[in-house]
Amino acid sequence: MKRIVLFGTGNVATHLFEAYKNSEDFEIIQVYNHASKSLQPFKDKVAITTDLNKISPADIYILALKDDTLAEVCFRMKDTDVLVLHTSGAVPLKVLNKFKHHGVFYPLQTFSKNKKVDFSKIPICIETNNQEDNQLIHDLASGISEKVFDISSEQRKSLHVAAVFVSNFVNFLYTEGESICKENKVPFEILHPLILETATKALNISPKDAQTGPAIRKDQDVISSHLELLNKEQQELYSLLTQSIQNLHGKEL
Amino acid sequence: MKRIVLFGTGNVATHLFEAYKNSEDFEIIQVYNHASKSLQPFKDKVAITTDLNKISPADIYILALKDDTLAEVCFRMKDTDVLVLHTSGAVPLKVLNKFKHHGVFYPLQTFSKNKKVDFSKIPICIETNNQEDNQLIHDLASGISEKVFDISSEQRKSLHVAAVFVSNFVNFLYTEGESICKENKVPFEILHPLILETATKALNISPKDAQTGPAIRKDQDVISSHLELLNKEQQELYSLLTQSIQNLHGKEL
Repeated sequence: MKRIVLFGTGNVATHLFEAYKNSEDFEIIQVYNHASKSLQPFKDKVAITTDLNKISPADIYILALKDDTLAEVCFRMKDTDVLVLHTSGAVPLKVLNKFKHHGVFYPLQTFSKNKKVDFSKIPICIETNNQEDNQLIHDLASGISEKVFDISSEQRKSLHVAAVFVSNFVNFLYTEGESICKENKVPFEILHPLILETATKALNISPKDAQTGPAIRKDQDVISSHLELLNKEQQELYSLLTQSIQNLHGKEL
Repeated sequence: MKRIVLFGTGNVATHLFEAYKNSEDFEIIQVYNHASKSLQPFKDKVAITTDLNKISPADIYILALKDDTLAEVCFRMKDTDVLVLHTSGAVPLKVLNKFKHHGVFYPLQTFSKNKKVDFSKIPICIETNNQEDNQLIHDLASGISEKVFDISSEQRKSLHVAAVFVSNFVNFLYTEGESICKENKVPFEILHPLILETATKALNISPKDAQTGPAIRKDQDVISSHLELLNKEQQELYSLLTQSIQNLHGKEL
């Protein structure tokens, strides 16, 4: 049984804690956070500490911390031979260079604290520069997920940008859709099946081949009538997205 | 048993034809299209015609036609007492004014010819200006769907714009995500669970409350490093969407 100390109590840390609860190969033996209040949900389940000098000996330290606190915690941590991992999509491997054994363990999903997730379907992107460590990280990841990928820091950065497009920005377009519905007293739920079908379709065929709508049809009458309905900011978004769709698909005609 | 003549052989028409196949209350007795080639898939299943003068007597004519051919077909159709419906999201009710009984029957979903759909979950937006016709359209819609909404032409227009945001534009962001992955030799499938979770979340909580990412966190370091990775067009989209997210959510801070 490999022992893990988990640093952090946010969404990723909380879901990892749940995911390893039933593991036969890995056990989380301690949770660290600088604020004792954040440790309250863990205190009856596992050893806790707010003191970086009282971190237990273990096989793996997982730093599931915010990007901007990661460097600081690394700086304050004692040097160690334990394998130290971070879980960030945006931070390069080299931020952990001071540790002899280090790597990245990046679960690519959007987590909400109160929503259960099935970790077995969540891709985990791993990286290290040492073959032996790679094996341990791979075992750690495949202990909870069926989808483990070796991804370099450069690739991970591009994945992170792509994730912003397909998740953060997509969610903002949902927000605009909801706001247009509200303004016109139409229930947003009418759009729910469309949202789900559009997402599902992108998993089955290339989204490039699935493009529909007035932009790709170059249906200028519909485009103009839509613009009339929108506020200035929505008009800007609508125009730029329409133009981008036409640029991409126009090239192929 | 009410008799239907279906005008059109595109995605919507094809799926409607399938949906009413097992109905006990409605029967599609004829399919019209101006091109006989398009009628081939129907010829062994139902009466077909390419001649607007040979449309069968029936209880309902459903014009599942492209927006830009709808007006022309209406113009060429003989006057009739039959209830005439169109299935478009963008065309107002009044385009059918020449017919005594007319209405809108707009299934709000993205259809692909080769992908089966469960019509029972697809919202159907109906409209008419006659109570008696409303009852018949309502029966027609609820015969295949659990979700029938009375929606005015104005509301339908706003729904159609909102649908462009949450479906056509969202699909384009998926396309950009896929293209970033390809350029960096990362499998797009790593993003599949994220795409699905983001969509599912928007169905359970308001997308406005679900917003995450560097834009809402105002994480300028990450934003700058992302922009470096993108081409000019992607940078424009990234900047405008980031700015819009910050405008919306900045107001509330």
